[in-house]
Amino acid sequence: MFISIEGPDGAGKSTQINNIKKFLEDRNIPYILTREPGGTKISEKIRDIILDKENVEMNYVTEALLYAASRAQHVSQVIKPALEEGKVVICDRFIDSSFAYQGYARGLGDTVWDVNRAAVDGCMPDVTFVFNLNPEVGLGRVKTRGEEDRLELEKMAFHRKVYEGYLDLEKKYPDRIVPIDASKSIEDIKKDIYLVLEERICR
Amino acid sequence: MFISIEGPDGAGKSTQINNIKKFLEDRNIPYILTREPGGTKISEKIRDIILDKENVEMNYVTEALLYAASRAQHVSQVIKPALEEGKVVICDRFIDSSFAYQGYARGLGDTVWDVNRAAVDGCMPDVTFVFNLNPEVGLGRVKTRGEEDRLELEKMAFHRKVYEGYLDLEKKYPDRIVPIDASKSIEDIKKDIYLVLEERICR
Repeated sequence: MFISIEGPDGAGKSTQINNIKKFLEDRNIPYILTREPGGTKISEKIRDIILDKENVEMNYVTEALLYAASRAQHVSQVIKPALEEGKVVICDRFIDSSFAYQGYARGLGDTVWDVNRAAVDGCMPDVTFVFNLNPEVGLGRVKTRGEEDRLELEKMAFHRKVYEGYLDLEKKYPDRIVPIDASKSIEDIKKDIYLVLEERICR
Repeated sequence: MFISIEGPDGAGKSTQINNIKKFLEDRNIPYILTREPGGTKISEKIRDIILDKENVEMNYVTEALLYAASRAQHVSQVIKPALEEGKVVICDRFIDSSFAYQGYARGLGDTVWDVNRAAVDGCMPDVTFVFNLNPEVGLGRVKTRGEEDRLELEKMAFHRKVYEGYLDLEKKYPDRIVPIDASKSIEDIKKDIYLVLEERICR
């Protein structure tokens, strides 16, 4: 069982990841929690290049390829081995982030899938929770947390495109993607997620 | 005019690159000399990850994607602008290295082109000099230079596959690729290269 969590920063993903962990721990289901970009030593090094504010001249294709490279290492070294051991994998961001940020917002379209096909190597999430949140609200939340990284500094138009990208992905992959209304209360979102987990894990 | 130089380390590429520079300088033809992986600040950072001997666990797909990411930045930031200014671009290694090392020797095949198509963005070399050298001879030359990097430490079978990969590429792209017999003397190789340059640049 491979679960990915998607949506803009500030949408409440971290809180609900903790709830998913609790759900699994309460039922003695072995799991690992990991994140993108990152999740391995090599992927973290790649992440540093991607998020470094000094790299303002980074080409969009370079960016998409670096995310894919980080993912290839993450899938082969962490995600696949854990799934093969029968563990649940919870991943904070995965390929839908590339589709939404690089494919939709950067306008790279199908190129994103071309460069990610070999990286994912057939290992797609079974369930993806996408946190839908009006980007103006989400960015306001992030700004209270401290310094923003390079991507967070991008202008609002970009975040609106990301938002619309996620909405489009939800239509495209209705069986895999579970939309979450992130404007709801933490407790209500938890209930929505637990219902899905009960159905897909405990059936 | 975009010239790339390919072949194993130790085949005498650097010496002939100096001869190509001299050819252009003698004729007052503006040029830039650049190299892969590298050629920009971001590409050099990616190069550091690729060649770091500590990263022994690097997946082959990760490696191919990192080379492509480095190339995307290099093409967009250095090669395309120079060509647009009317300069000759001399590039020490380019996409054929990915075809030979990742495609043939690592066995990734067509995946290499899938991940490089957007990186190259239509910017293919006009002429590619491939230095053909029996890998046993080439490696012997490199070892006298000092410490080897991660790729140079790979076993002989790998270098043999790279060699055969280049021979295959020469058959596949006969109009673009000019095979160079690297077992010839430096002076004879220089003459072979100058003949091609005379024909293609000065005609």
